This record gives sequence, C-alpha cells and structure tokens, in this order.
Amino acid sequence: MNFSLTILGSNSAIPAHGRFPSAQVLNIQEDLYMIDCGEGAQIRLTNFKIKRSKINQIFISHLHGDHVFGLPGLLNSFSLAGRKAPLDIFAPSGLEKMIDVIFETTQAHKTFEINFHVVDTKKHKLIFENKKIKVYSIPLQHRIPTTGYLFKEKPFPKNIISEKIAEYDIPFSKIKEIKNGADFTADEGIVIPNDELTFEGKTPRSYAYCSDTVYLESIIPLIKNVDLLYHEATFGAEMAKVSFERGHSTTKEAATIAAKAEVRKLLIGHFSTRYLDLNVLKEEAAEIFPNSHLAIEGQKFEIDFIS
Amino acid sequence: MNFSLTILGSNSAIPAHGRFPSAQVLNIQEDLYMIDCGEGAQIRLTNFKIKRSKINQIFISHLHGDHVFGLPGLLNSFSLAGRKAPLDIFAPSGLEKMIDVIFETTQAHKTFEINFHVVDTKKHKLIFENKKIKVYSIPLQHRIPTTGYLFKEKPFPKNIISEKIAEYDIPFSKIKEIKNGADFTADEGIVIPNDELTFEGKTPRSYAYCSDTVYLESIIPLIKNVDLLYHEATFGAEMAKVSFERGHSTTKEAATIAAKAEVRKLLIGHFSTRYLDLNVLKEEAAEIFPNSHLAIEGQKFEIDFIS
Repeated sequence: MNFSLTILGSNSAIPAHGRFPSAQVLNIQEDLYMIDCGEGAQIRLTNFKIKRSKINQIFISHLHGDHVFGLPGLLNSFSLAGRKAPLDIFAPSGLEKMIDVIFETTQAHKTFEINFHVVDTKKHKLIFENKKIKVYSIPLQHRIPTTGYLFKEKPFPKNIISEKIAEYDIPFSKIKEIKNGADFTADEGIVIPNDELTFEGKTPRSYAYCSDTVYLESIIPLIKNVDLLYHEATFGAEMAKVSFERGHSTTKEAATIAAKAEVRKLLIGHFSTRYLDLNVLKEEAAEIFPNSHLAIEGQKFEIDFIS
Repeated sequence: MNFSLTILGSNSAIPAHGRFPSAQVLNIQEDLYMIDCGEGAQIRLTNFKIKRSKINQIFISHLHGDHVFGLPGLLNSFSLAGRKAPLDIFAPSGLEKMIDVIFETTQAHKTFEINFHVVDTKKHKLIFENKKIKVYSIPLQHRIPTTGYLFKEKPFPKNIISEKIAEYDIPFSKIKEIKNGADFTADEGIVIPNDELTFEGKTPRSYAYCSDTVYLESIIPLIKNVDLLYHEATFGAEMAKVSFERGHSTTKEAATIAAKAEVRKLLIGHFSTRYLDLNVLKEEAAEIFPNSHLAIEGQKFEIDFIS
C-alpha cells in the first residue's frame, strides 16, 4: 500500500537554480494530497506525471507567495479540464477572499466547488478525516500565521491467525468483526478472546510537514516518532542569526527537532537561493540526525511499513 | 543594435508538454519589455538567463489566467531582491485591484512603485514612449477585453556624408542638428540643403503582438509592414469553428493576416494542448505565408535592419 511523498518544489522565496518554490504531493493508499502550492506546481505535476485530477485536498501552510502562487493556475486548470469533484482547501485565514478576487478578475468559469477550511494556526487539532487517514494541524512560528500538518494512517485491522479459523470453525461472516477486535463465541458458548485469534495489523504510517518555522520545541510531542518529517532548513548553521530573524530554521535546528522527536527519517527543504550546492546542508543535518535527506524536486520518498 | 524577442511561454490555457503559458521578453536596444506574464514566467527568465531587473515595463494583453498568473510571483521576487526602480504595467482594467489584494493577503513588502496604466481595448493609441521606442495598443476581439501591442523604434538620425564635412568645413557643433535634418549655412551665407549632406539612417524596426484574438481584418492597417508579427494560432485549420467560438484564430487565419499586412516574418503561438507536434501548425501557416515560424520557448528571434 502506497505511502509516498513527491517533492514538486523546495526552494524558498525566489525560484532559482532550476528549483521551484514549495509544493509537494503525498500519496496515501492512492489518494493524493497536495501540500503547499508554489508557483509552477501544476507544471511540476505534469513534469512528474502526477494526475492532477486525483487531488481532492490541498493543505496550505501559510499565505506567503512562495507557498500559494501556484494555486490560481492549478484551480483554473481544474476548471478548464471540466473538474466536477469538490475540492477542500485548508489554510490560515484570508485565502478564500484572494482566490475569489482572482477568479472574478480573470473571469474564470468554475466547474467545481471549493470548500475553504480556515485552520487555526494556534491549535493542534484534527482538521480532516476520511476512511484512510486523519490530518492534524501543527502550530508553527513564522513571520505570519503558519501551520504544519500531520498525516496519520488510521489503524489497520488485525490479522486473523488462519489455523484458528479451522480450529474453532469460525464462519466467514464473523471474520470482519474479529479483525476489528471482537471476541468469538464458539458453538458451546465458550468465548475465545480476540488476542488468541489475531495478531496485530500493520503499523499505521505518518508524515509531518513543518514549514516555515523557527526552531520550535513545542512541536516535538506532536510529531513524536513520525515515519517521515519534512522540516524546513532554509539556511546552513552559519546563518543562525539571520535565519531566526526571518522566522526560519537552520539545518542543525531541523536535525535537532528530528532527533528529539525520534522520527524515522528527516527531509530538509525550503532552501535559500544562496545555496547552489545543497550537499553541504545535508551533511550539516546528518551530523546531528544521520538519516537526513534533501527534498530534491522530482524525488519520491516511499515509506514502508515497519511491521 | 539589439531588437530581439525571446519566447518564455507559448502554450494556451493549461501548461503541457513542457510548454509554459504566454510570456515573452522583447529586447530593444538593451531595454527589456515583458509581454504577458503567464505562470512560471520568472522561472523561464532564470532558465534563459534573462535579467529580471532590466524589465521596467510589462504589457498585458488581457486578464485570462494563462496571461497573468506569473505576475504575483515576479512582482514578489522584485521586492525580495530589493528592487527600487518603478515599474509600469499596462493592462485592461481590473488588474490593479487583483494585484493589490494578492499583495495584501500574502503580506508582501513592496520595495518599489508600480504604475498601473489601464489600456482602452477599443482604441488604437500611443500608450508608451521613451527615447528609443513608441508603443501603441491594437484593439483585438476575444472573449474578454483584449489588446495587442505594437512596438516601434523611433526614427534614427540621418548619416552625414563624411566627404561633405571637409568640403564645406562643417564644424563639429553643427553635426548633430544636420543629422536631425537641418540644412547647413556655409561661411559665404550659402545654404546647403540637408539632402546634399546626408543619407537616410537605419530604418526603424517594429514588432506586433496579437494574442488572443479571432481573425480580425481591422488590425491589418495597424500592423502593416511590421518586421515581426506574433499572431496567436491556438488551433489548426481543421478546428476553425471551435476556434472562432472560443475567440481564437487558426494557423491559416494568422497566416492570412500576416500576408495581407505584408509583414516580414510571422511567429505563431498560444498553442492548444491538443497539439503535441507543432510542425503541422507551422506547415499550415507556411502554405499561406511562407516566412512563418513557431514561437518555441527559449528561442530568440532577432530582427536585423533592412537598410
């Protein structure tokens, strides 16, 4: 079952060195979730052969241009392609008015419904849920109201021990409820506890997106043990002062968060244009958190089950 | 002296096949003028190593998204780079409000002044002038108010015939006015007519941008004899009916305009996503107007002096 993240853009502020501004697509069990939507995100979707129409939710961290300027074009293209499915957009307050004015000015004919959901950037809350996942907000600290997002798969059903089906002559109709935790009452009225019939299902996977933000220890309990953490690292450690002043993190700060939250894997991104060679950033992060990687555009990061 | 057009994007509606939406940069004697600004225009500027900061005027044909969605990012990047020089933006009515709302929502700090000039899309008028060029609007017919633009170099000074300087002992202080057409009064009071002293300077060059529009014969006198005409050809001739209904032109219509206006060279662009191979479009145009070319992104079309 798919759980993979594709980077569409990971440069900060001004696009440079062939790097686009922030945008990602998360595939969880074949549903696509877009995270941030910098200019050119729809161009990257085409470049990387990702089906635009499979995106039904978009999560925006904050309203700085390098995280939202791809939205007008993407939404317009949805309409031009005759999209009918409604679209959810999660973002801090203010986006709906901007999109409305843009649609009105460009006289775009909208063929589908957009449901805007204002995210409270001060609270850690469940903001979205479907059959497969739950998404939570993560309060961040930047120059303007900003939220991160935590994506968690819902628990998987338990696995039934196949020999037990024969042993207790379990009828097919009971299998589903046993997988969901029910005990089984055999013919003689004897109750067989669920634990004897099943073993644990796969461990749900999780992904946390934290950009843009200063170094913020309050996020550590919220992202504890996630399988994959994307944490901005706009600057190298040498720029710590400037980084903080601009509401950003350094490589070492991102890696410290990853280490303290004991995540499985760290991706750093939102690179400053000042860095042409990004390996120096990776190396700095890896000194503190060895399983650190660069969020290179076009790369797909797949998350396997740990059990 | 430079007079060249670089295509940044020439796809219509949705970016596809690696093609970006409409945007161009015209270099006239080392001043850069941007024409339309589809999503990703600033990314293309970087790709093609064109200095963003040298653009001081932007000309927008109409407010459909595929012609303006690159503006927010470009203007934001100007500010992030600390631009101080004022910027002129020419466009049909409505753009200023949209840009204002975008700047406000994204809390962009603007470091330079933007002068918005509303272009009357019903009139052929001089809308901009500097020492080197004049720019005129060209009324077009599309689904929403749309204008083309005609860029014309100002007349060049005449050339003085060097032998005449010695023959009439012309002082250096008089050279400039003679080049600008003045007669010369020699010591004896004899007036030497300008025609005897000079020969014509270089013929000014011109470029017309006509996109988006239906086939429109009223533009022919306005673009007569231009050196380079960009005329949209969204569709091949087989799509004439759909093309007209959507306010667009076909290859053959673009070429017919070029032929009737007796232009030197035709560029077709604003290609529909339905065309993966564009050569069929070029061939159709060339049947009617042989000097037809495709506006391929990244290509630079240089216009030489004819005399």
